Amino acid sequence: MNSFLSSDVAFRIRENFGTPCYVYDENTLRENARSVLAFPHPFGLTARYAMKACPNASILRLFNSLGIHIDASSGFEGERAIAAGFDPEKISLSSQELPSNLKELVESGMSVNACSLHQLETFGKAFPDSRVGLRFNPGLGTGGTNRTNVGGPASSFGIWKETVSETKEIIARYNLDVFRIHTHVGSGGDPDIWVRAVMLSLDIVKQFESATHLNIGGGHKVARIEGEKTTDLQLVGTPMKTAIEQFAQETGRQLHLEVEPGTYFVANAGVLLASVQDLTSTGNDGYNFIKLDSGMTENVRPAMYGSQHDMRLIPSDSTVREERPYMVVGHCCESGDILTPAPADPEALSPRPFPEAKIGDLFAINGSGAYCSSMSAKNYNSFPESPEVLIRSDGSLDLIRKRQDPVKVYENELKLDF
Amino acid sequence: MNSFLSSDVAFRIRENFGTPCYVYDENTLRENARSVLAFPHPFGLTARYAMKACPNASILRLFNSLGIHIDASSGFEGERAIAAGFDPEKISLSSQELPSNLKELVESGMSVNACSLHQLETFGKAFPDSRVGLRFNPGLGTGGTNRTNVGGPASSFGIWKETVSETKEIIARYNLDVFRIHTHVGSGGDPDIWVRAVMLSLDIVKQFESATHLNIGGGHKVARIEGEKTTDLQLVGTPMKTAIEQFAQETGRQLHLEVEPGTYFVANAGVLLASVQDLTSTGNDGYNFIKLDSGMTENVRPAMYGSQHDMRLIPSDSTVREERPYMVVGHCCESGDILTPAPADPEALSPRPFPEAKIGDLFAINGSGAYCSSMSAKNYNSFPESPEVLIRSDGSLDLIRKRQDPVKVYENELKLDF
Repeated sequence: MNSFLSSDVAFRIRENFGTPCYVYDENTLRENARSVLAFPHPFGLTARYAMKACPNASILRLFNSLGIHIDASSGFEGERAIAAGFDPEKISLSSQELPSNLKELVESGMSVNACSLHQLETFGKAFPDSRVGLRFNPGLGTGGTNRTNVGGPASSFGIWKETVSETKEIIARYNLDVFRIHTHVGSGGDPDIWVRAVMLSLDIVKQFESATHLNIGGGHKVARIEGEKTTDLQLVGTPMKTAIEQFAQETGRQLHLEVEPGTYFVANAGVLLASVQDLTSTGNDGYNFIKLDSGMTENVRPAMYGSQHDMRLIPSDSTVREERPYMVVGHCCESGDILTPAPADPEALSPRPFPEAKIGDLFAINGSGAYCSSMSAKNYNSFPESPEVLIRSDGSLDLIRKRQDPVKVYENELKLDF
Repeated sequence: MNSFLSSDVAFRIRENFGTPCYVYDENTLRENARSVLAFPHPFGLTARYAMKACPNASILRLFNSLGIHIDASSGFEGERAIAAGFDPEKISLSSQELPSNLKELVESGMSVNACSLHQLETFGKAFPDSRVGLRFNPGLGTGGTNRTNVGGPASSFGIWKETVSETKEIIARYNLDVFRIHTHVGSGGDPDIWVRAVMLSLDIVKQFESATHLNIGGGHKVARIEGEKTTDLQLVGTPMKTAIEQFAQETGRQLHLEVEPGTYFVANAGVLLASVQDLTSTGNDGYNFIKLDSGMTENVRPAMYGSQHDMRLIPSDSTVREERPYMVVGHCCESGDILTPAPADPEALSPRPFPEAKIGDLFAINGSGAYCSSMSAKNYNSFPESPEVLIRSDGSLDLIRKRQDPVKVYENELKLDF
């Protein structure tokens, strides 16, 4: 996991860009993109990147150059992808909230999956006689926790499977052409659940005869730590391909497949590089703490979800270091700012063995390419947003986001007099 | 709770500033400040605002005008308070990570509580023969959850109580004058624990004869929802005052008391105002969902900690609305983006009764003045940072933070070519 970051390069990054710093690896990004582009498909494939995972413009541009399209979760994301150079026609919008400038975005060429009956009605009013995708909740989900499960009755996402007839009424009222059926089933890696999801989705496709595209959303789980398993896309995709072939035999409809992972593209292509800035202890009956110059401000996943990341202490000298158990904590004045919670239980502490730490050592939090830079407690305690660096295929280092100027954190505030 | 926001004013705010929008109330802020300034004390009091709770410049300026001082959690916060008009001498820095410009900040007049042996050593090297405060971990904490508990063996914050002799060695080596002892015990409201914390703190003060100030950190719990209880500062403070008086009788030392709540000042002086932008359902055996144009991007506390906020649907028309149970969810493509989790269990769903909702209704999330604007999954899904509005004592509305320009979200990125 994240073997791309050698100690030498890590120290070079700290010297040039400081810590905390996100580090991405071009080779790994390319390799992950190749795997997604090789997803089994009988009648054509569009691979979309769920850009909410890590929306940096340079990463978007790399994927664009490889023929990857975009899944945007908000109108703002769609505009961000356009600003990064994407042709709007390569962007599909599946959002929980329709953008206020929907008309402008659709007229630019962006396609839309209506994710609720209200969204469909709004779209139909604005664009009668046009093409639209439909996002359904097929009633089944897969995810590591309840909170990463985006299908099933506990999820608000998509048109509920039992409301097909209401959906058809709206379609008829505005003479819409349903060209795509979209379902999204979470971020689990169980092939059986994915196949069941595809079967349920094909049942929905059957009811919309105009649909030519099947869009199977959902992130494919990757191993961020020993014991976890990265989804084998060939293993998951092969029975899906068979199901689509069988559907074609039964119906004569050869469906174009779309997939749109986020995590799979980027999670293990990114490391959060931090420095050990303090060491504290609460004695023999307590804990030893490694205190980083980073934390929930850059990666809130452990604090929020109890997510487990592989981590590595990178010693700043060559002395022999014996291992001992440590809690790893962030730099915020927030007791929840911990990086070594128990799995899926951020309330519980789970110390891990590391070589004896010294202040000034580097510390790598692996598997931080997805949902870290994009989803964190940014600017908490007034810490500025961290820089992002890309290790290029030739080994050179390119800054792809500057560290935020601390005064920009509050630049939109207005000062009243009292 | 948050009765300050009438429906009329809520609609006026949406009309003028849009939603989502944070709304603060000057009268409530003033009242809370008065309560803190009335904290029982025998020999002088400094009331500090833990600005990490809500660091908006105008709120800082209001508190400054009332004689409140500042507790800064990072050097960046200290500089932010100075930029908002605070005299550096009114700012006390208690940080988990010493700022790189410590020298500059101390020379400006900011005082420092060394929060670890390493911080003390660093401070001593930079400023021998000078005054310093010491933050101790007294070995006892109070907090709603493990993760909001900042005292005790599971907390990395402060110098561990058993290392007084190491502390004294460093003090002697740099000839430091320990003028303040600081302890911080979390955000619980149990008076007994607070008194025990004070007694433990006084035991530490006894060992540092030069100390003239006792700084008792920790947020005082406030009721954000029915069934919770706001800490009675008089009730908590009176036995603390007695303890300090007894200490004076025993030792002849009349300690100046410092308190530094964050939540107490602002939590119930703020409302997050959102709009109902969609309604979905997963059928009779599922849930009904109210979908807001806000969520974890503005208030991550329910998703992260299972925090309970009082919430209110503000109907957009006068039709009779029957109550029904709803899950309230945010606008992010993140299944964890829910506002009605079970108490202290963000994994579990806990629908609540609201009047039947319509798209276009307003929705108020009360108790959102603390750790919402400052600590959220800002910019996730590329949503821009929300505006902040202050309801003035005369009823007028002042914008105190503009909505972020969406392109500013990614202004620090650099575009590589591939």
